[in-house]
Amino acid sequence: MKRIAICTVLAATILVAAVVSLTTAAAPEGKANLGKLRHVVMFKFKDGTTPEQVKSIEDAFRALPSKIPEIVDFEWGTNNSPENKADGFTHCFFLTFRDDAGRAVYLPHPAHKEFGKVLRPHMEKVLVFDYVANE
Amino acid sequence: MKRIAICTVLAATILVAAVVSLTTAAAPEGKANLGKLRHVVMFKFKDGTTPEQVKSIEDAFRALPSKIPEIVDFEWGTNNSPENKADGFTHCFFLTFRDDAGRAVYLPHPAHKEFGKVLRPHMEKVLVFDYVANE
Repeated sequence: MKRIAICTVLAATILVAAVVSLTTAAAPEGKANLGKLRHVVMFKFKDGTTPEQVKSIEDAFRALPSKIPEIVDFEWGTNNSPENKADGFTHCFFLTFRDDAGRAVYLPHPAHKEFGKVLRPHMEKVLVFDYVANE
Repeated sequence: MKRIAICTVLAATILVAAVVSLTTAAAPEGKANLGKLRHVVMFKFKDGTTPEQVKSIEDAFRALPSKIPEIVDFEWGTNNSPENKADGFTHCFFLTFRDDAGRAVYLPHPAHKEFGKVLRPHMEKVLVFDYVANE
């Protein structure tokens, strides 16, 4: 009987853990990220920037999360909107920081400054918009 | 002994379920959303738009996910970037569709068109940028 009791307690504990983790997993992404600081960066490159140069800028930006742990999430893509309202911007990089403190580390970070050197010769314009995620 | 065996199988099953769900929960948001279609919308309102009018536009946009199930995720916020590169945009709404088909339902959707009527009298400019999320 003692083994059955231990086994039952074990099963109950695991069940509670499973329910808790399933509840967490089931939360929509938006809910999970409410309150986090989103950092939206868009680029338009200068005429004459080659595909290889664009690729090198993409790769340099994509390398930043491995160098700056305050970037807690990172994704990017190129514009495919059919609405023709992107004002010439072709690239969007979407970074997430936990809070202002994460951004305060990121902005002056040496790796970020190095990226700027790769970008700057080819950049025609940039847009940066930061917001705290609300639902 | 039979009860112990059943109990052990139960515990093992629950453990596997817990590990699977924990693994899912632990996936970074960016990984979970790779391949999804992100729809970034920014607004600048006309001078003279009152806080009440801005609030009514925010609320009208925030109501869209309940009317258009193809919006699988939704968040928004107002610019707080210290970099002064937001080109006057004050509001960003960040929508997610599973794919092009979701967007194709959204763009001409009557509820979206109705929102346009609320927005349009106060909108100075808009930017729309869509991308498939890459890592």
